[in-house]
Amino acid sequence: MLLEPLAHIGRDPATGGYVRDAWSDADMELREWFAGEARRRGLDLREDRNGNLWAWWGSPSRDRPGVVTGSHLDSVRQGGAYDGPLGVVSAFAALDLLRQRGTRPAVPVGVVCFTDEEGARFGVPCMGSRLLTGVLGPDRALALTDDSGDTLADVLTKAGRAAHEIGRDDETLAMVGTFVELHVEQGRGLVDEGRPVGVARAIWPHGRWRFDFRGRADHAGTTRLADRDDPMLPFARMVLAARTAAAERGVVATVGKVRISPGNANAIPGLVSAWLDARGADERAVRDLVAELAHEASSGAAGGDMADRPGTNGGAGGGAGGGAGGGPGSGAGGGADRRIEGRGEGRVEVREESWTPVVDFDAALRERLARVAGGDTPAPILPTGAGHDAGILAAAGVPSGMLFVRNPTGVSHSPHEHAEQADCEAGVIALADVLEDLCR
Amino acid sequence: MLLEPLAHIGRDPATGGYVRDAWSDADMELREWFAGEARRRGLDLREDRNGNLWAWWGSPSRDRPGVVTGSHLDSVRQGGAYDGPLGVVSAFAALDLLRQRGTRPAVPVGVVCFTDEEGARFGVPCMGSRLLTGVLGPDRALALTDDSGDTLADVLTKAGRAAHEIGRDDETLAMVGTFVELHVEQGRGLVDEGRPVGVARAIWPHGRWRFDFRGRADHAGTTRLADRDDPMLPFARMVLAARTAAAERGVVATVGKVRISPGNANAIPGLVSAWLDARGADERAVRDLVAELAHEASSGAAGGDMADRPGTNGGAGGGAGGGAGGGPGSGAGGGADRRIEGRGEGRVEVREESWTPVVDFDAALRERLARVAGGDTPAPILPTGAGHDAGILAAAGVPSGMLFVRNPTGVSHSPHEHAEQADCEAGVIALADVLEDLCR
Repeated sequence: MLLEPLAHIGRDPATGGYVRDAWSDADMELREWFAGEARRRGLDLREDRNGNLWAWWGSPSRDRPGVVTGSHLDSVRQGGAYDGPLGVVSAFAALDLLRQRGTRPAVPVGVVCFTDEEGARFGVPCMGSRLLTGVLGPDRALALTDDSGDTLADVLTKAGRAAHEIGRDDETLAMVGTFVELHVEQGRGLVDEGRPVGVARAIWPHGRWRFDFRGRADHAGTTRLADRDDPMLPFARMVLAARTAAAERGVVATVGKVRISPGNANAIPGLVSAWLDARGADERAVRDLVAELAHEASSGAAGGDMADRPGTNGGAGGGAGGGAGGGPGSGAGGGADRRIEGRGEGRVEVREESWTPVVDFDAALRERLARVAGGDTPAPILPTGAGHDAGILAAAGVPSGMLFVRNPTGVSHSPHEHAEQADCEAGVIALADVLEDLCR
Repeated sequence: MLLEPLAHIGRDPATGGYVRDAWSDADMELREWFAGEARRRGLDLREDRNGNLWAWWGSPSRDRPGVVTGSHLDSVRQGGAYDGPLGVVSAFAALDLLRQRGTRPAVPVGVVCFTDEEGARFGVPCMGSRLLTGVLGPDRALALTDDSGDTLADVLTKAGRAAHEIGRDDETLAMVGTFVELHVEQGRGLVDEGRPVGVARAIWPHGRWRFDFRGRADHAGTTRLADRDDPMLPFARMVLAARTAAAERGVVATVGKVRISPGNANAIPGLVSAWLDARGADERAVRDLVAELAHEASSGAAGGDMADRPGTNGGAGGGAGGGAGGGPGSGAGGGADRRIEGRGEGRVEVREESWTPVVDFDAALRERLARVAGGDTPAPILPTGAGHDAGILAAAGVPSGMLFVRNPTGVSHSPHEHAEQADCEAGVIALADVLEDLCR
């Protein structure tokens, strides 16, 4: 099995899920594995200033940029084995196949492992490619904190990296002439098509917003309902409203992460922080959804738990509509803070943590990939709701494309994520064909 | 200020709140402080088999049980300075006052510190008094786990205690002739009455239930709404239904603690666990509320996120009504597991983690306390929604009573919990008067 060498790293034996946070022990072990694979093949291994790993067959330069393939090795928490690693393992396997075929590439071929694609630790996905391309600034990145309160700056320093050197890296980016990322499909498009391999058309616009609902911590037994300012109620309303609004707009919205403070079973919380993930084919629909939720949360929270004592805290009033969603795109990873505050108690703050506009992959490249990867019949071309480093590179002007490998259930970000061995092998062959075609 | 010597222990400088989990470093420091106060006064210090601390002035025996006062030193997480410690500090201060007055007690006088009253670490409140009186069995207690997965057995062993010796302790209990607990009020009854000190009439029946909503973890971007089994939705419905049902029944219900697994911002969760705290003057109303919520969650969850694909998973059907709430009282701390499972996905399990029936404090004793503590006019007698060790002892047949000290805002289980210095001093004097009266 292609992924066998990595199967034990960061695996939670209780669940079968993977926990591979960026710069964790598991991640360091994965990086060591990558370095070993590069050495074993006599490739030129480089780590760029942002922690991304590059293994080169041949020497790229500004005048002779290479064809690059790869993906990432980190994972969402309790994720599956395929999301990320399949693309890296397949990259090395495709390179081996090219060598077996006796291919003599006209340009250098590179294998890349992007750092912290999932954002499991610091909350910002595609950190490595966002830093590389400059859509995420180093100051904002270094100040991000993990669950232990450690900043990225702390974590990089502890890992022996020069934290002050991270940021936009045009020199490294100039080596990438074309980028092709192979990835397990995270839906059932290929199942419906009855095909093992497909090509990405576009990445939906997607973003992440943090809703902080503030109330007043108090005793669960002695505080009358009428005296409560319980942020759990407006939070619960937001969860339900998000589903309704997403269905109405034909987009998806998810609340998968929540922090409750102080989190005592016998106390009303003082703060509920919830992360909203929203995506869809239509950017306007996604932004409208977030604006509506922010508006409802803002007016709802101030009137929210205080329904039985109207007038006590006043409505939050204006500011909500233009809050989290109103403005034009803030650019990939811009993540501007946009707060909405009610007066006094029952207030909510909404901050945009990340936003990535729609990414249409290069049309000529994707047609070429579909033709080469599809064999007799061009491979199907599918949109996707998942963000990828290939989308970040494409948005930065690097001709980029993606190959998807069939996922029988469509389940991803879960230990149940799966791809059949035969489909993985078909993916490697398709990737090798594509690389051979691109590096003629 | 009475609480000054303890002000630094376990205080979170970021919030001003206290974190004093049982057997934590902070708790060990608090226990050391208690031992020092006992030694300084020449009292006879004993730790019983369940970790409760007793400081005796005089030697109690089965034939000559003492008058005991005290409370607890642990805290809810991010709690206030008064809940618990005020009763212990006031106990020592009242004893000092008796000695200054030259009182010669006819029976021994004891100061007690009960262990783990809040249940912040292992989820079961009044652990020390429940073990002492036997309403919580040692096997169940030792298997309880904290957030790190350590069992009480592990934690006791690490603290140098004999874990296998915990459990009902009739010998220690026989030394307690009468118990009076002084506590900061956790509501505004005394504010309304305009009095600094009051007496408890009864402790409301109260309990804690754990709702486990199970769904299927999946990708937040690529999973169609129609394909989702998102446990966050039935959880949110339960939160809102709890408030409505509580208002209808004139009781209180709170969800203050939630665990979400895996908790990724970009993944639909697979499991949401929520703790429901419910209390009220009328036991039937509390039990009906829980039964209704369990029923709704059970039928709602199975039909819940699958609203747009009816028939896929079927209703959970029967079992709900008799589930968490139907049966007669399970007894204080009985905590029987009562599960409700739907079929396949979208199922919910509801377990009763603790249940304490109404506790009416000894009528003669409370009248006596009100008369002695009130000065010219008897102190007001108030019900309370908070559980206390005095309630556990009363239920076990020990004549017990409580004094409350006025809380200007009524806020408790929060850093904003407060009592004025003058009211605390009035509390000490009232407690000394009561002790003097009881140990004549």
